[in-house]
Amino acid sequence: MNSFNLKTFLTTNVEIDEQTIKEHIEKLKKIRIKKGNFLLRQGDICKHSFFVEEGLLKYYSIDEKGKQHILQFAPEGWFVVDRESMFFNQPSQYFIETLEDSVVTMMDEDVFAELSLQNKDFALFNNRLLHNHIRHLQNRINLLLSATAEERYLEFVKIYPDLLLRVPQTLVASYLGITPESLSRVRKDLATRRFQK
Amino acid sequence: MNSFNLKTFLTTNVEIDEQTIKEHIEKLKKIRIKKGNFLLRQGDICKHSFFVEEGLLKYYSIDEKGKQHILQFAPEGWFVVDRESMFFNQPSQYFIETLEDSVVTMMDEDVFAELSLQNKDFALFNNRLLHNHIRHLQNRINLLLSATAEERYLEFVKIYPDLLLRVPQTLVASYLGITPESLSRVRKDLATRRFQK
Repeated sequence: MNSFNLKTFLTTNVEIDEQTIKEHIEKLKKIRIKKGNFLLRQGDICKHSFFVEEGLLKYYSIDEKGKQHILQFAPEGWFVVDRESMFFNQPSQYFIETLEDSVVTMMDEDVFAELSLQNKDFALFNNRLLHNHIRHLQNRINLLLSATAEERYLEFVKIYPDLLLRVPQTLVASYLGITPESLSRVRKDLATRRFQK
Repeated sequence: MNSFNLKTFLTTNVEIDEQTIKEHIEKLKKIRIKKGNFLLRQGDICKHSFFVEEGLLKYYSIDEKGKQHILQFAPEGWFVVDRESMFFNQPSQYFIETLEDSVVTMMDEDVFAELSLQNKDFALFNNRLLHNHIRHLQNRINLLLSATAEERYLEFVKIYPDLLLRVPQTLVASYLGITPESLSRVRKDLATRRFQK
């Protein structure tokens, strides 16, 4: 199983001395959480960013008919957080749930804000995280508006190269905004074409 | 015609002395631009945020078949910018074009960064802008994944209350990710129900 350590992630991504990071990171709560448990439920106010060190989370909504809609998967090395709920202190519309047994570091809002105030490099890094988030969301909207099922699938494989074997097809289809039947068709078509090459 | 002044917008939204804002804002370029002109084209690197003082912009992509997909409308008082292109210095996938004769203030990236470094309140305001952007994008994805055509339409009317009379139906449908026929049906259904009440 892959493993990503938040301290390593930060020291490789931010020009900030290890001691400062260590001081802040060591205060953070790291939890082991079994598959099928919740880190956020609809109606809660999101109080933490979650950094996945091991395992896999899903971030999703449930519509009136009880159907799940996947906004994001978070495997090792990914952050997941409902920034809307956390920043604006509003009840979340979403759920965060473990799809596998996971190890997750919980950061409360203040950690990033404090580090940003103390350290300009960290502020820049935080800004980059926000812009990266916007980049992902914007691309996703453009794909949902304009791309075929196959294009969406290929983009999924690019973003999440090792998830196809870890995530049920119904959830992949939900992420892509297509039916499971359509996803099967896409996979079959791609396999046939690969075979013919 | 409504008119929104960037200076007024900032002084009412940020706790920052008028003099500081004035110094920065007065250096900015304000342009009058006729309907049907471009502020950003696919392949360009986006060098500015645009604040709409008068008029209306559309922010969109064009797919391989030449079809437009609207990511955002920007009427008076809205910002529009390809943050991905600007922040990561990458060629944009998108276009920004005037849908009406417009007056637009152009802010280059440095203005917000400089003001943020000089002034903590401005940094907080900028952070709020980024989170607000994320909030909009996330909601949009959730609607595209989970909402009916009618729900998407009602959300559109809430976000853009005065745009229905200013924007062609085909562009509204494109924003909603539905066909123009489906949009007509939704509007007819809603009108019938309103009439029956």
